[in-house]
Amino acid sequence: MENKNLKIGIIGLGLIGGSFALALKQKLNAEIYGKDKYFLDKAKDLGLIDFELDDNNLQEMKFVIIATPVDTIGKIAIELLDKISDKTLVFDTGSIKHNIAQVIENHSKRNQFLLAHPIAGTEYSGPDAAFPSLYENKINIICDTDRTRKDLLKRALEIFRKLNMQIIEMQSKEHDRHIAYVSHLSHISSFMLGKTVMDLEKDEKNIFQMAGSGFASTVRLAKSSPETWTPIFTENQVNILQALDEYIENLENFKKLLQNNKSRNIKELLTRTNHIKNIIDKIG
Amino acid sequence: MENKNLKIGIIGLGLIGGSFALALKQKLNAEIYGKDKYFLDKAKDLGLIDFELDDNNLQEMKFVIIATPVDTIGKIAIELLDKISDKTLVFDTGSIKHNIAQVIENHSKRNQFLLAHPIAGTEYSGPDAAFPSLYENKINIICDTDRTRKDLLKRALEIFRKLNMQIIEMQSKEHDRHIAYVSHLSHISSFMLGKTVMDLEKDEKNIFQMAGSGFASTVRLAKSSPETWTPIFTENQVNILQALDEYIENLENFKKLLQNNKSRNIKELLTRTNHIKNIIDKIG
Repeated sequence: MENKNLKIGIIGLGLIGGSFALALKQKLNAEIYGKDKYFLDKAKDLGLIDFELDDNNLQEMKFVIIATPVDTIGKIAIELLDKISDKTLVFDTGSIKHNIAQVIENHSKRNQFLLAHPIAGTEYSGPDAAFPSLYENKINIICDTDRTRKDLLKRALEIFRKLNMQIIEMQSKEHDRHIAYVSHLSHISSFMLGKTVMDLEKDEKNIFQMAGSGFASTVRLAKSSPETWTPIFTENQVNILQALDEYIENLENFKKLLQNNKSRNIKELLTRTNHIKNIIDKIG
Repeated sequence: MENKNLKIGIIGLGLIGGSFALALKQKLNAEIYGKDKYFLDKAKDLGLIDFELDDNNLQEMKFVIIATPVDTIGKIAIELLDKISDKTLVFDTGSIKHNIAQVIENHSKRNQFLLAHPIAGTEYSGPDAAFPSLYENKINIICDTDRTRKDLLKRALEIFRKLNMQIIEMQSKEHDRHIAYVSHLSHISSFMLGKTVMDLEKDEKNIFQMAGSGFASTVRLAKSSPETWTPIFTENQVNILQALDEYIENLENFKKLLQNNKSRNIKELLTRTNHIKNIIDKIG
């Protein structure tokens, strides 16, 4: 791939889009054309983008990345597919994939789209939060790749490799079901834990001074952006409700064991769950 | 306080007791006399202790620290109070205080005991996990201090100050109620989140490769020791059941909002909970 004149458009210049911009400049010397409803000036000031993406330059892009909230991606995808040249690949970075797959399913340029979900992020958001190494050694899940044109898919994989991302392929439906457990549910458990303790503090002042690093770690995700996460929850409703039911059931079972003084069963349960050590240590 | 010949006994040489040993050696040049059912040899090998604590040298101790699982502290406290000299202060480090307060309440040497709870720890356990800076700038909650002899309390506060711990005072009952929310509940939410995802993986292989740092942070406490945490949960049963009920209620409410597509309410809820930022950032 010739890096000279590698033009990449990015729509949505928050943590995710902004970090792609920085990484693609650093590693591929790409020229970044950006678009954002709210953060365009800020993104320019921060040096995330070189030019504004518009209908006049869109056809020159090798890639266009959609990094906006998940409930807006489908519409933007259609608009882009309507306008891009035959040489452009569009990919999105949303945390849910099947809804987008369905929206673009019958578009004549469906094969110029790649459904992607980089497993990367922090609890911070906006262009200020962007940094170039966000995607280093991170997983990138790509879905339904048989629907993407082979030459374009190959080019996308080259880009991801240069950003040192590890690729996993799966079906979009399967992605959404699993991600509800390993990502969306953690965010809900963290938000609701934060809420439970904040509710108490209304009456009992200063209990947070009693909190340690364990609490901080568990509620870290409760700092996450409501603009990003509300549409993720609503768009992945069915899968999240399933995961949430199982989580609440596990909490209810724990409660019963505790009510009935079943300390041996509790200990067994904790010991079994300790095996998660091996798993988390791999995530790093 | 003369640091020469400052003899300190520690019962329980895991993360908590072992880290006290290392810190007290480093900062106060103390001689550490240790006791542990399982880890005595290991603690010696690791250099945590200088001598074994026994009935022959117990009376020479300025302080004795009890750092064993919470269901064993009361009994050990009574045995120690029966045997110590008038110059010794005993303090414990358990995560629950009122049960111990009740056990020692009528002992003739009650005023030689201090109920303490250093808010410090990691998800690791045992003597290997101990390190000298564990207590640096950490909160130490001391309870019912009007029941401790003034001269001994003063000496204990000097020690804590030299270890750079910040002191909070409260009643033991109040401590147990609040700590259920800011510590014990986080552990349960984390263990049950880990369990929920592990249950799913039985059928759906390798979903953990989809997990990112957010998931790892939220389930970090699920690595915690079942030996330490089972008795904490059972001994603080009433307060934890209360906290758990409120947590489950918040999850059920979230579920209802999601089922009924109330995205505006969800967004408001997340936005309010975002205020936890200010709080966690202080915990650091």
